[in-house]
Amino acid sequence: MRQTDLFTKTRKETPSDEVSKNAQLLIRAGYIYKEMAGVYALLPLGLRVVENIKKIVREEMNSITGQEILMTSLQRKELWEKTDRWDDANVDVWFKSALAAGGEVGFGWSHEEPIGEMMKGYIASFRDLPIYTYQFQNKLRNELRAKSGIMRGREFLMKDLYSFSLGKEDHDTFYQSVIAAYKRVFDRTGVGEDTFVTFASGGAFTQYSHEFQTICTAGEDVIYINREKNIAINKEVLNDDTLNDLKVSRDELEEVKTAEVGNIFDFGTKKSEELGLMYANEAGKSTPVWLGSYGIGITRLMGVIVEKYADEKGLVWPKSIAPFQVHLISLAGEHEEVKKEAERLYEELVERGIDVLYDDRNVRAGEKFADAELIGIPQRLVVSEKTMAQGGIESMDRMTGATTMIPEGRVLELLKKD
Amino acid sequence: MRQTDLFTKTRKETPSDEVSKNAQLLIRAGYIYKEMAGVYALLPLGLRVVENIKKIVREEMNSITGQEILMTSLQRKELWEKTDRWDDANVDVWFKSALAAGGEVGFGWSHEEPIGEMMKGYIASFRDLPIYTYQFQNKLRNELRAKSGIMRGREFLMKDLYSFSLGKEDHDTFYQSVIAAYKRVFDRTGVGEDTFVTFASGGAFTQYSHEFQTICTAGEDVIYINREKNIAINKEVLNDDTLNDLKVSRDELEEVKTAEVGNIFDFGTKKSEELGLMYANEAGKSTPVWLGSYGIGITRLMGVIVEKYADEKGLVWPKSIAPFQVHLISLAGEHEEVKKEAERLYEELVERGIDVLYDDRNVRAGEKFADAELIGIPQRLVVSEKTMAQGGIESMDRMTGATTMIPEGRVLELLKKD
Repeated sequence: MRQTDLFTKTRKETPSDEVSKNAQLLIRAGYIYKEMAGVYALLPLGLRVVENIKKIVREEMNSITGQEILMTSLQRKELWEKTDRWDDANVDVWFKSALAAGGEVGFGWSHEEPIGEMMKGYIASFRDLPIYTYQFQNKLRNELRAKSGIMRGREFLMKDLYSFSLGKEDHDTFYQSVIAAYKRVFDRTGVGEDTFVTFASGGAFTQYSHEFQTICTAGEDVIYINREKNIAINKEVLNDDTLNDLKVSRDELEEVKTAEVGNIFDFGTKKSEELGLMYANEAGKSTPVWLGSYGIGITRLMGVIVEKYADEKGLVWPKSIAPFQVHLISLAGEHEEVKKEAERLYEELVERGIDVLYDDRNVRAGEKFADAELIGIPQRLVVSEKTMAQGGIESMDRMTGATTMIPEGRVLELLKKD
Repeated sequence: MRQTDLFTKTRKETPSDEVSKNAQLLIRAGYIYKEMAGVYALLPLGLRVVENIKKIVREEMNSITGQEILMTSLQRKELWEKTDRWDDANVDVWFKSALAAGGEVGFGWSHEEPIGEMMKGYIASFRDLPIYTYQFQNKLRNELRAKSGIMRGREFLMKDLYSFSLGKEDHDTFYQSVIAAYKRVFDRTGVGEDTFVTFASGGAFTQYSHEFQTICTAGEDVIYINREKNIAINKEVLNDDTLNDLKVSRDELEEVKTAEVGNIFDFGTKKSEELGLMYANEAGKSTPVWLGSYGIGITRLMGVIVEKYADEKGLVWPKSIAPFQVHLISLAGEHEEVKKEAERLYEELVERGIDVLYDDRNVRAGEKFADAELIGIPQRLVVSEKTMAQGGIESMDRMTGATTMIPEGRVLELLKKD
C-alpha cells in the first residue's frame, strides 16, 4: 500500500487524555481512534494487526476442532435470570436498554448462557457430544473505569470458545488441549516466553481456575512465579493451602506484574443444570452436559504486545502480526532515478505477495524515519542516492536496530514470502 | 468438512414463531439460530455464507480504493446531538443505556457522525482528500416490529462506506463509481438481474436518493420499473414531477414488490457543516467536505438471496456465496467398498482445496437427500453401490435439478477449483 493512499497520519503529540502507553502509541501512529474512554475504533493499520491475530487464533481453534459461529450482542433478560446473572448486584458490567417493543434487553459481555441455551436444540443424545464452538465477538462491558487503553475496554474483541462434553474425563482432556492451543497462540504472537498458566480463584465448581498471565508492567494483576518449576499463582490465591497443593514455598516465588491475556472457566455441570442442558446417556438417562468456556481478549492481547515490545521511538511488532512486513522508504527528493528504483521495487514486492507499506510521500527523510519507527513495521528498506551509489538497499530490523546493505540483485530473494 | 463433525442438525418442522421464508429455511437447515425476534446468531453454515458475501463486497470496495476500518458500537450522546440525531423524536431506532461512570451512551445504528468527527483529525488540507473508508459493522436498531427474518433485524451486519471529497465534481464521480461497484456486488451474489437503481426520496440536500431494490415478494417496498429504459422509481416519489424528470409515463411502468439491498445518501456539505469537518482549499480558505454514505445490508442481502432462489425443497445457493461448493454423499451402508471410495474422494477434494461437506453419517439415503436439498449446496455428488457399478459418481445441480453420471476418472478434473 502506498502511504499517500493511507488516510491516517502520525501525531507527534501524546494524547493528553491517555495514560497508557499502548493507547498513546497506537493513537499517535494511527492504529486506533478513541471514541470515548475505553472505546476505540480500529483504523486501517489497527484492523490489519487485529486480523492477523485473529488468523492465528482461528487456526489454533480449528486445530482442536472448534467450529466458528457468531452469537449476538443483544441478550434476553429472561435467559440470564435463569442463572442469576441478570441482576446488576451479581454482574456489574451490563449495558441494558429498553426495547421499543416492550421489555428490556442486555448487551453481551459473555456468552455462556445463550450458547448453552442454543445447544439445547442440538444436543439430545450422547452421540451429539462433544461439541466445541468459538466466536470472535464484540463484547460490551459497562466498566466503571477505563484507563488501560485497549487492555481493558468497554468495547473489545474477544475470542470465546465453549466446550460441551459427555463427562469429566472428556472434559478434562479437551481442557488440556485448549491450554496447549493457547500456549501456541501466545508463542506465535510473540508473548509466549512471558506468559504463564496461572492458578487463580475457582468458581462454584472448581477449586482453581486457570488464567494466562503475561508479564507486563502496565498489567492490573500481580502473580507469583517460579520459572524453573513453571508454577504461577495469582496473588488472590497465594496462601498456605495453595502453596501446599502446588508443592512450592513462598520464598521460591518471584512477584511480577501481569496482564491476563486468556482465561479458562470450568463450569462442570453447574450451568447446564441451571439451563436444563441435558443429554440422554447410553442407558437413556438424562445427564447434564459438562461445560467449559475459554477466552482470549484479542484487542487486549494486541495492547499487551504493544506494551512489551514498544521502545522510546514507537511501536515494534513481531512479524507474525505486523500490519505490513516491509516498510519501503524512498528518499527520492528530486532524483528521478531513485524514485524509479523505489517504484520498481514496490511493484515487485506487491507482485510477490509481500505486504509492503511504501512511503512515497514528498516529505523530508527525518520525518519518514521517525514515522517508520513510530509505526513499527519489522523491516525497513531505504532506497536513496547513497544506497544506489553502493549498489543496493539499506535494510533495518526494527526490533534489533541492526542495519545491513542488501545488494540490489538479492533483495527479492531475501524477502521471499514465508 | 465431515457432516458428523458439524454440530448443527436440520429440523423437519417449520418454526412456529417465524412467518418469513428466509428465517424458516435458514433455521431448519441450521444456518442461523433465533435469539429473539429480529436477532439471529450465525451458525457454522450461516457464517460461511456471510463471510463469502463479505469477501465479494470487500473486493469491490477495495477496487474503488476503499480503506477498511471498524468503528465502535458505543456512541457518544454529545456527538449525535450536534446533528440533532440523538433525540428519539428524530431517530426512533436508538438503543440507549446508562453508563456506569455517569451519563448515557447509544449503540450504533449508523456511523456518519462518528466517522465524520474522526476525520477531523485526518483532514486539514485539500491534499488530504479524497478519503474513502468502509467497514463491516454489527448495527443495532431498536425496531418496533421484526417479522422479516434476517431481512430486517434488530441486530444485523452492514457494510457501510463513507466518502470525503473536495467538491461536487469529485463527489459525483465517486458516487457513480460506487453505483458501478454495487452493481458488480449484486451481479456476483446472484441478484443482479433483479436489482434496480431506484429513485427514492432525497434528504435535506438532494432531490432524490438512490436505493438498490431487488425484486422480492417478501420485500417491504413497492417500486415502479421500466426494464427497457432501465428506470426504477420508489412508490414514495411516484408523482408527476418525478415522471417528468425521468421522462417516463405512468403506463410504461410495472409495479413490483422489492427489498432494499443497498442505499446511497448524498449529504453534500450539510453534515460536514454541522460537525465542523472542514479543509483548507488551495487558497487557504476553510471549506466544508462533501460527504456521502453508502450501505449494503450483508445479512439482509443473504435473506433476499434465500427468498429469491429457495424452492419447496429448501435453500438454493449461488456458487459464489454457498457455504460449500460440493455436498458429497456416501450411501455406503454396510458396503465397505463404497465407504472406501467416498472417503478417498473426500480426501482428494479436500487436498485440492475444494470446499466440500461430506455426509458420512450413518442414516438412510432418503434423509441424506432431503437434508442435502434443504441445505442447498450447489453440487451434490453421490457415491453408492449403484454409481460404482456404473463406474462413476452421480452429480446433481441443486439449482436446475439436472443429474449426470461422471466417470470416476474425471471427477477431479470437473471439480477443479475456479
